[in-house]
Amino acid sequence: MTLPSEAVERVREDVCALHTELLRWNLVTWTSGNISARVPDADLIVIKPSGVTYEDLTPESMVVCDLDGTVVDGRHSPSSDTGAHAYVYRAMPEVGGVVHTHSPYATAWAARNEPIPCALTAMADEFGSDIPVGPFALIGGDEIGKGVVSTLTGHRSPAVLMRSHGVFTIGDTPKAAVKAAVMCEDVARTVHLACERGPVERLPQEHIDALYDRYQNAYGQK
Amino acid sequence: MTLPSEAVERVREDVCALHTELLRWNLVTWTSGNISARVPDADLIVIKPSGVTYEDLTPESMVVCDLDGTVVDGRHSPSSDTGAHAYVYRAMPEVGGVVHTHSPYATAWAARNEPIPCALTAMADEFGSDIPVGPFALIGGDEIGKGVVSTLTGHRSPAVLMRSHGVFTIGDTPKAAVKAAVMCEDVARTVHLACERGPVERLPQEHIDALYDRYQNAYGQK
Amino acid sequence: MTLPSEAVERVREDVCALHTELLRWNLVTWTSGNISARVPDADLIVIKPSGVTYEDLTPESMVVCDLDGTVVDGRHSPSSDTGAHAYVYRAMPEVGGVVHTHSPYATAWAARNEPIPCALTAMADEFGSDIPVGPFALIGGDEIGKGVVSTLTGHRSPAVLMRSHGVFTIGDTPKAAVKAAVMCEDVARTVHLACERGPVERLPQEHIDALYDRYQNAYGQK
Amino acid sequence: MTLPSEAVERVREDVCALHTELLRWNLVTWTSGNISARVPDADLIVIKPSGVTYEDLTPESMVVCDLDGTVVDGRHSPSSDTGAHAYVYRAMPEVGGVVHTHSPYATAWAARNEPIPCALTAMADEFGSDIPVGPFALIGGDEIGKGVVSTLTGHRSPAVLMRSHGVFTIGDTPKAAVKAAVMCEDVARTVHLACERGPVERLPQEHIDALYDRYQNAYGQK
Repeated sequence: MTLPSEAVERVREDVCALHTELLRWNLVTWTSGNISARVPDADLIVIKPSGVTYEDLTPESMVVCDLDGTVVDGRHSPSSDTGAHAYVYRAMPEVGGVVHTHSPYATAWAARNEPIPCALTAMADEFGSDIPVGPFALIGGDEIGKGVVSTLTGHRSPAVLMRSHGVFTIGDTPKAAVKAAVMCEDVARTVHLACERGPVERLPQEHIDALYDRYQNAYGQK
Repeated sequence: MTLPSEAVERVREDVCALHTELLRWNLVTWTSGNISARVPDADLIVIKPSGVTYEDLTPESMVVCDLDGTVVDGRHSPSSDTGAHAYVYRAMPEVGGVVHTHSPYATAWAARNEPIPCALTAMADEFGSDIPVGPFALIGGDEIGKGVVSTLTGHRSPAVLMRSHGVFTIGDTPKAAVKAAVMCEDVARTVHLACERGPVERLPQEHIDALYDRYQNAYGQK
Repeated sequence: MTLPSEAVERVREDVCALHTELLRWNLVTWTSGNISARVPDADLIVIKPSGVTYEDLTPESMVVCDLDGTVVDGRHSPSSDTGAHAYVYRAMPEVGGVVHTHSPYATAWAARNEPIPCALTAMADEFGSDIPVGPFALIGGDEIGKGVVSTLTGHRSPAVLMRSHGVFTIGDTPKAAVKAAVMCEDVARTVHLACERGPVERLPQEHIDALYDRYQNAYGQK
Repeated sequence: MTLPSEAVERVREDVCALHTELLRWNLVTWTSGNISARVPDADLIVIKPSGVTYEDLTPESMVVCDLDGTVVDGRHSPSSDTGAHAYVYRAMPEVGGVVHTHSPYATAWAARNEPIPCALTAMADEFGSDIPVGPFALIGGDEIGKGVVSTLTGHRSPAVLMRSHGVFTIGDTPKAAVKAAVMCEDVARTVHLACERGPVERLPQEHIDALYDRYQNAYGQK
């Protein structure tokens, strides 16, 4: 197999650089989160090496795998979550990036097996719904990937709280998946704080629908 | 229409620079808050571009709009909250700056539809009262702006917690509005922490009045 | 009156530099805390100027006052808390530094009018007791200073939680007072977190006494 | 006694540099935590000097002690916790590094005398069990060291919450002990947040066993 080397290099740089966002927004501790991206027009993904600290990451240290999670190029072992990432790319062809974190507030909801209710306008904008909880799944086979895919398929939310584990987010680009991970922790925190001191009302469905529709179409630069 | 270009440039620089305060005091996540300022002696405002991350902001990227929120100058689309900002400037001629955030503790109070009781001397100093909750309002028309204006008109507080949404603050300058947003989150956090573990007494009204009066007149440099 | 100019300059530099510790340990927001120091062998203190942000502080901007809080030298108005600082120096000749903050966890205890129970060995080390609450007092006269002095005189704790207000700490040097302010917030947070989820036992008095005695005599460099 | 000077210098540099991780992950306040390491093939340890702030640490300021905690080389007094560190090295020959902190969430569990239940997959990975609480022990003799050793001997967890005190972690290297201290605070926080809002289920023992076994063998680079 010949690697599309320029495209792979660009994705390596992109995936490496995006990991700084996980640190910056306090989503990860030590080596606990990872990002991957699909190489455009190739059955390849680029993913963080396993157990390497964020300051030691370089584009060259990123690992290239096929869609079964088998290493195709790279000096390091890939993230121990590679199987889950790869499963998502196989099952969801529209996905261009996947992020996994144990960000604290979101993972606290996951530990209680409780979806985050859509109680904020910013949450309606970004997630269009509650952020759902996926099943408990052990690492090592396809269970985590299946849980992510079965929960997110047909769901507006790009984020799933995997029970007793942490967060997986998807996006059409790795940056979009990173944004979803950042916003997931943000709303997990605010709704946690709100619920600590009394009941919080979910927004009415019609408002959620209106906000989601507008945000997906009107926000940002053209 | 001829732009008062020197004045506009100064405001662009000022508004751009003030956004670093939102990051520094942890009021914003990703691209979630925005600042605007009135151009002195002109029916113009300068506001953050929509969906641009804070590190990518430059004075040139700031967008100049008229008081209806229509773009007058700028290469970018303005903040999706421009309509709300513009409404405030139209209705409150004394306002020179407006800030909007989803800062977590303040937004948690907004999600519970609960004003922050004036329980701290620093809160009496800055806000002179409870920080009030404004109505739920959908983005896209004048509803948010109307809610901000109807809540803050005749109120001592320069901050309003828009229900299930976030914070809007006003000031005679954009820096004063930023200070109000920073202090709003600060007191929202401290009073939240206090209330987590037991009842908290609002200060007696006579003390609030005395503190507010003194602070507005005696604090800072002449 | 002739100023002891070399000694004053040294204290100005010291007080200015110590303010960075308040920011670093997240004890202050915007311009909300201040430090003062006694000028050795003189009836003078050096204190932060009022309402100046921490990054704009320079040694020259520090204000020199006499022990009544009257400005003796300086281009700026002194902190609005100068009266309270000055009262402490007049009443407690052993005090060489005073710090005032609204650090969030400690101020949350103050808002509930609840002393922090001595439930941690580190708290016994540094404070030798519960951290007491002082009376509610309005700014502007000697009330705050009197409340600080009446609470801390004869008390092991160098920190007092002024009711519905914030923290004052004292030390034989300004650095010692800063350390007390930093550690006060640290134990306020840990004990808050502990109490959020169940009852916490105060240490037995004999252990507090043993730990306090040892720490005051054996810790640090000779 | 002749010091194995090259080995000692390497350990001094290593121990000094690792202290920046305690600051970076917010585990320490002022001078409140310390790291030590065993010098390979020697009955010596290297430990932080007492009461020195982290920014003032240099490799030369690190103190070399024998396994009784007596200073062998160094210009400073060693950490007041040296006795506890030394006891661990004497009793546990497999230990190459020891870390002590008062990190806030973990210490909150210690203040309540409550082990952290193994409720997260990341916790099963790293700790293989609940994180246990050790006995209350006064500083100054062998009590703390004995408490650490008696709790961790034969336990999967490299971390112990010493009652009403703080955290001790061990590792085959000082970096491994630092990682354990960082992850201990991370899971202490997430499980605290989860428990604040409802009951949290411990993972079934068979899942904990499977996750722990896999992580100890399959994670990271070969």
